Amino acid sequence: MFIHMKELQFRAKPEKPDPVYARKLQEVLGGQYGEMSVMMQYLFQGFNCRADRKYRDMLLDIGTEEIGHVEMLSTMIAQLLDGAPADQVDEAAKDPMIAAALGGMNPQHAIVSGLGATPTDSNGYPWNSKYIIASGNLLADFRANLNAESQGLLQVVRLYEQTTDPGVRDMLSFMIARDIMHQNQWLAAIEEIEAIEGPIAPASFPRERSVEEVTRQFMNFSVGEESSAGRWANGTLPDGTGDFEYVANPTAYGDAPVLNPPAKHQHSTLGTGPYVVNEGFEK
Amino acid sequence: MFIHMKELQFRAKPEKPDPVYARKLQEVLGGQYGEMSVMMQYLFQGFNCRADRKYRDMLLDIGTEEIGHVEMLSTMIAQLLDGAPADQVDEAAKDPMIAAALGGMNPQHAIVSGLGATPTDSNGYPWNSKYIIASGNLLADFRANLNAESQGLLQVVRLYEQTTDPGVRDMLSFMIARDIMHQNQWLAAIEEIEAIEGPIAPASFPRERSVEEVTRQFMNFSVGEESSAGRWANGTLPDGTGDFEYVANPTAYGDAPVLNPPAKHQHSTLGTGPYVVNEGFEK
Amino acid sequence: MFIHMKELQFRAKPEKPDPVYARKLQEVLGGQYGEMSVMMQYLFQGFNCRADRKYRDMLLDIGTEEIGHVEMLSTMIAQLLDGAPADQVDEAAKDPMIAAALGGMNPQHAIVSGLGATPTDSNGYPWNSKYIIASGNLLADFRANLNAESQGLLQVVRLYEQTTDPGVRDMLSFMIARDIMHQNQWLAAIEEIEAIEGPIAPASFPRERSVEEVTRQFMNFSVGEESSAGRWANGTLPDGTGDFEYVANPTAYGDAPVLNPPAKHQHSTLGTGPYVVNEGFEK
Amino acid sequence: MFIHMKELQFRAKPEKPDPVYARKLQEVLGGQYGEMSVMMQYLFQGFNCRADRKYRDMLLDIGTEEIGHVEMLSTMIAQLLDGAPADQVDEAAKDPMIAAALGGMNPQHAIVSGLGATPTDSNGYPWNSKYIIASGNLLADFRANLNAESQGLLQVVRLYEQTTDPGVRDMLSFMIARDIMHQNQWLAAIEEIEAIEGPIAPASFPRERSVEEVTRQFMNFSVGEESSAGRWANGTLPDGTGDFEYVANPTAYGDAPVLNPPAKHQHSTLGTGPYVVNEGFEK
Amino acid sequence: MFIHMKELQFRAKPEKPDPVYARKLQEVLGGQYGEMSVMMQYLFQGFNCRADRKYRDMLLDIGTEEIGHVEMLSTMIAQLLDGAPADQVDEAAKDPMIAAALGGMNPQHAIVSGLGATPTDSNGYPWNSKYIIASGNLLADFRANLNAESQGLLQVVRLYEQTTDPGVRDMLSFMIARDIMHQNQWLAAIEEIEAIEGPIAPASFPRERSVEEVTRQFMNFSVGEESSAGRWANGTLPDGTGDFEYVANPTAYGDAPVLNPPAKHQHSTLGTGPYVVNEGFEK
Amino acid sequence: MFIHMKELQFRAKPEKPDPVYARKLQEVLGGQYGEMSVMMQYLFQGFNCRADRKYRDMLLDIGTEEIGHVEMLSTMIAQLLDGAPADQVDEAAKDPMIAAALGGMNPQHAIVSGLGATPTDSNGYPWNSKYIIASGNLLADFRANLNAESQGLLQVVRLYEQTTDPGVRDMLSFMIARDIMHQNQWLAAIEEIEAIEGPIAPASFPRERSVEEVTRQFMNFSVGEESSAGRWANGTLPDGTGDFEYVANPTAYGDAPVLNPPAKHQHSTLGTGPYVVNEGFEK
Repeated sequence: MFIHMKELQFRAKPEKPDPVYARKLQEVLGGQYGEMSVMMQYLFQGFNCRADRKYRDMLLDIGTEEIGHVEMLSTMIAQLLDGAPADQVDEAAKDPMIAAALGGMNPQHAIVSGLGATPTDSNGYPWNSKYIIASGNLLADFRANLNAESQGLLQVVRLYEQTTDPGVRDMLSFMIARDIMHQNQWLAAIEEIEAIEGPIAPASFPRERSVEEVTRQFMNFSVGEESSAGRWANGTLPDGTGDFEYVANPTAYGDAPVLNPPAKHQHSTLGTGPYVVNEGFEK
Repeated sequence: MFIHMKELQFRAKPEKPDPVYARKLQEVLGGQYGEMSVMMQYLFQGFNCRADRKYRDMLLDIGTEEIGHVEMLSTMIAQLLDGAPADQVDEAAKDPMIAAALGGMNPQHAIVSGLGATPTDSNGYPWNSKYIIASGNLLADFRANLNAESQGLLQVVRLYEQTTDPGVRDMLSFMIARDIMHQNQWLAAIEEIEAIEGPIAPASFPRERSVEEVTRQFMNFSVGEESSAGRWANGTLPDGTGDFEYVANPTAYGDAPVLNPPAKHQHSTLGTGPYVVNEGFEK
Repeated sequence: MFIHMKELQFRAKPEKPDPVYARKLQEVLGGQYGEMSVMMQYLFQGFNCRADRKYRDMLLDIGTEEIGHVEMLSTMIAQLLDGAPADQVDEAAKDPMIAAALGGMNPQHAIVSGLGATPTDSNGYPWNSKYIIASGNLLADFRANLNAESQGLLQVVRLYEQTTDPGVRDMLSFMIARDIMHQNQWLAAIEEIEAIEGPIAPASFPRERSVEEVTRQFMNFSVGEESSAGRWANGTLPDGTGDFEYVANPTAYGDAPVLNPPAKHQHSTLGTGPYVVNEGFEK
Repeated sequence: MFIHMKELQFRAKPEKPDPVYARKLQEVLGGQYGEMSVMMQYLFQGFNCRADRKYRDMLLDIGTEEIGHVEMLSTMIAQLLDGAPADQVDEAAKDPMIAAALGGMNPQHAIVSGLGATPTDSNGYPWNSKYIIASGNLLADFRANLNAESQGLLQVVRLYEQTTDPGVRDMLSFMIARDIMHQNQWLAAIEEIEAIEGPIAPASFPRERSVEEVTRQFMNFSVGEESSAGRWANGTLPDGTGDFEYVANPTAYGDAPVLNPPAKHQHSTLGTGPYVVNEGFEK
Repeated sequence: MFIHMKELQFRAKPEKPDPVYARKLQEVLGGQYGEMSVMMQYLFQGFNCRADRKYRDMLLDIGTEEIGHVEMLSTMIAQLLDGAPADQVDEAAKDPMIAAALGGMNPQHAIVSGLGATPTDSNGYPWNSKYIIASGNLLADFRANLNAESQGLLQVVRLYEQTTDPGVRDMLSFMIARDIMHQNQWLAAIEEIEAIEGPIAPASFPRERSVEEVTRQFMNFSVGEESSAGRWANGTLPDGTGDFEYVANPTAYGDAPVLNPPAKHQHSTLGTGPYVVNEGFEK
Repeated sequence: MFIHMKELQFRAKPEKPDPVYARKLQEVLGGQYGEMSVMMQYLFQGFNCRADRKYRDMLLDIGTEEIGHVEMLSTMIAQLLDGAPADQVDEAAKDPMIAAALGGMNPQHAIVSGLGATPTDSNGYPWNSKYIIASGNLLADFRANLNAESQGLLQVVRLYEQTTDPGVRDMLSFMIARDIMHQNQWLAAIEEIEAIEGPIAPASFPRERSVEEVTRQFMNFSVGEESSAGRWANGTLPDGTGDFEYVANPTAYGDAPVLNPPAKHQHSTLGTGPYVVNEGFEK
């Protein structure tokens, strides 16, 4: 059960409106790695959590915080849209700067959402739940979370530099800080799990059931061997089971496949006469 | 430029058909974390790579390998669909096992794809490119890759146990091995990058521009403090800038927002009389 | 069965082309609440209608009218795209107004659709059938229809004011009139159904099977009680079963949930050794 | 800003697992009219609200309650999935009831989500934000909300009858009660707005700008006049501007459209010779 | 403008209900190549048609017919769903055939659509407008139409054999006939256009602007030359400009690409210190 | 199994950056008929191919070539994005041309992809696998392929004319040539199949099972007979079974449908009292 407090977690007030920037800022609200994604990802991981209670509580704490981030961004976007020049057709015709601004806006902000934030990205593409994962495996999911906070921070930093509005930068400087914290958080949580399980997710599949020699091989599927120079092809395996091997010319373990001809009921065989499957019905 | 070799990277032949399992196996072909996702993610990261050539080469090596994994899975699924009982309506009516099998199949395997694999998941949902990311930042993207290999391996392990067909398990034991290797690979690559940049992605935003105190705080957005017990709330920050702090009762930094009234051209203000914006046109 | 008449239901001819406005107008053709939505919603409600024949006939009458609205809008958009400056690269380079226009166009109008209307919204997002509903329950569906006509009219009014082209405004003045009529229509149809069933959809679930006390309570899930001031928290319930109650501090009826540990076959339990479910197969 | 309380708003515990029903119940969690939809719709309407504070507060109160409904449903689904027979391949082969159950499950519950709830509907289709609307116009949006609660209640009632599990019915009897309350709430809120604005949304467009005669006409776009019998074709218009008129044979106001030939740069004109637009570049 | 006639174009009445088949039949109603696709494709091609009036009229004739096909299929599906056993929970528990049927149904038929047809495919995936194309080029579009009728007929034939219900087969025998006619129609229309333009769409690009030698070459991008045996590698080019050539070992015309380093504002360069782009703002 | 060669199939280097054109060029990379579509369509048709080996080999040859086209376009787009003015906020404010360019860019190029190509179309809509088909029937699929190459070439030609950059035109002149070849290829392959099967796909359904008279009739579903003038209504049927017939006034073969009343468990019948289906459970 949840409770709302009317105060925002942080200030969210631009110095002046900027409808083109409002469109851009939508990316970190309703985009692939926006706040809606982390909010829903953490909430679903928490609701489904079958592990120790501290994990459930932690996931729901951060999920609940992210609902408040969606709130802050929506509030900011609504204010950036104040005074959007949708009502100045004639002035637009005279002033190329206004025309350019109108061209750069998301038209749905003026037609659909009443100059409010939309649950979409910077191209108006709707948020959808395939952006998120809750697999039940803590290590796998914490890696998903670390990735989400890394991509998200990267995007916020890029957006920070695409405006000089002090109010917007003020809010983003808070969101940047929280994304840094959340990267720290997932790094720490991963460290805790890896101490128990090792670094392969899931840990519980018996290694001898796999084709073990290929758990160590970097396979060079190209002409040229630049890829042999990285850590991924040299030294100890992170899971401690041996050393990386570089296979310059990978060989095929399998044969060329030969599929059976099409089933009769698929009507895909060349050169048959007409026929009907499941006879016994006369029209 | 790419070249095809007719041999499969590994054997992909089931002992006998199983159309219900064919549907399930689609998940790791065309699902959120299936082989199409890693194939396209690595290829786009490689094509767009602006870093040292060894990264581009490595990304395209593994992306090219994954095209071959799509090929193996497709081949396997087509054979699992051999003899699917779409042509046995009357027998189905008599044999509940056949009826159940028909009920559990993906109907599009029999109606649309000619008993072939489809670029969709186990519910017939189409693969789409919002499953993948290529951000240009190596650390962020390698974390996306590590997550993809973790979620992917988890799903393959679950699928391994949902069949006892030796041929299917044989192929999956190879794919499991490669997913283990690929987790090792991304762990190693991340280690290499973090040695240069530290663990926060991106590293290049000046910390003093953020609200620094909240880069350290785990905020407890719930009643009850179970979440205080984890590594994420205790000890040194992974980025080395201090220690975690647990904030039991987070305070709001912002005020309750007050938005301006609707713009006139939005026709959303209560209690106005009729009016038209952009006058000067007479019907 | 349907018949086409070549005349448009109303005039649809702009005074002059305007490719940026063509993009905007797409919203009410192929957007969430555009004409394609009401057309398909009414047709499917009509095709599936199991109630008295007058409802089916009425639904198909209005659905058929809406096909004609799709036709009018498509015709208008095609003409707004006449002379779109895709062939004036060099002039564009000199004239910022042309450059702005090009920037504000939907590029797919020039690349994909041959300067024709597309079945998409103003951001190029494709129409999809999750925009519509046909539930079989007349009251529920007529409310969906009233909502669609309300959102639709709102958007058309906003678009009317974003142009001063007399031809466009002429056509929109007709569409506005029909949307007003259609709101009247659904209000009247709802009145007819509510006279039989009362205002709760569906009416046929026995009230005593529900947790009756909470059918009357507005629950204040926030700090502060501004929400107590509205009609929704005061006076008689619209369904006539009592009065609204304002619950300032809602209590939880349930406990904190405790989920069972993960099933073994999910490979999500921390700290187990390796194992395989469904043994009996040896690789 | 939001706070989480660990208790559920109501009990959510099934008497025994039922993975096929778990799949069905997903419809009202992540489907078109599921709890995720009302949660996000109310939150976005609240975040963007530019009207009197009581509306914002009310919208966020109910939006916050709905987050708790998502929590309850997720909790229920996770428990319905307990003991899902994914690990009993051999028994399934012997027991057609188990085979049928496996066939009726959502395979992603066993492969992807670790026997947890997913943010998808009963066919595994992901929730997306085009299910919701926040237009800025209170009357239009409250109608959207009334529709959502009507469709939602209808679905929950149908689901109530598709199980006899006392625990599931217990939780649904609470959700049914809240949906009844929420229909009451939106009916009352609409009553409040209509008292100010009248029943047409938006009210602020001048009626004389529309083609007034067609604001009253039901047009019979079919052969046969069954549709003349309803309230929508007889009596006073709900907006009080006159009486309904039934137009048995609607006439076309417009002509047959004639579009201009294709622009040259579209390469769609029949029978031209080869040419290049934007010449002056020599390969 | 369109008119509805109450009679169906053909009989659409099953001998008895079959809810599992109802789900399958959805494929040709709302699937990628279902009747909704051809209906919308022909209507949009017609609405946008800038060519001679006979083409527009022909496109709208067939598009209008297809609306009637959507009507027939919807009617059939609604009747196949009559008596769907959603209300027989206890019997289902006893009868595995009923359980299997329930497992094979689309749950949304019982929960969402009131046992009516839905605008979705056999997996419940919604129809969307990216299934269709209206490019403005008649030859390209007629090929799209021929493809749609070919894929559609194939699917209907497969579905014909998956039932023995005489009523369903009766209706499908009509739809099969129309699909045969429509293939004939597009073949004839293509013949008419190719007589004017030749077989390459579009015809109007000057051949000498292309890299002419590769307009003739089949390139063998694999090890092994089985592909040299087909008509596509031997004999006269269909466009009459020469003969096919088989290139056994295609060479690269381009070099290995070298991209510039990341722009500073992308924060993707390894090993820089912290910095901010667009300075001049002090927090 | 696949191998990568570092050289591009053709040169892909623009003379100078053009971020607005980069957005447009995305259409033929990740759009409905872009290179990703043909790549995936040919690969899946090849992987699933159950026909003679020459077809499989041919399909995989061309599918493999198309992977290289995705590579070329991605490389080109990344270079067109070099120097995108995301870091010049202040200059943008002064120079309307820069402002216009920023307005016309895809914001995700600067926020999400690090100035790299994205697997999306020119409006940022993600590629999805419903763009492609692999049906198992060679004639149907080769027609899909011919359509794809026709729509694709049309779009590339339009894009060729929307730039005058010699480097871009150079690359497009190669892609145009290959699209011409690929149209030739599919025309030849279709000729080979039609020589065996005739022109109706699939050929194997017995004609006498269809309603034969309507396999010949063009039905005029409109008022007016312009459509009688085309080849599709006159002369010999392409399948050789007779002559076209023009039916000026098509008659309905079916009756007006009458559906059964709603099932009780659907709660959609007007005017019943309350009831519960599946009784025997007492709350």
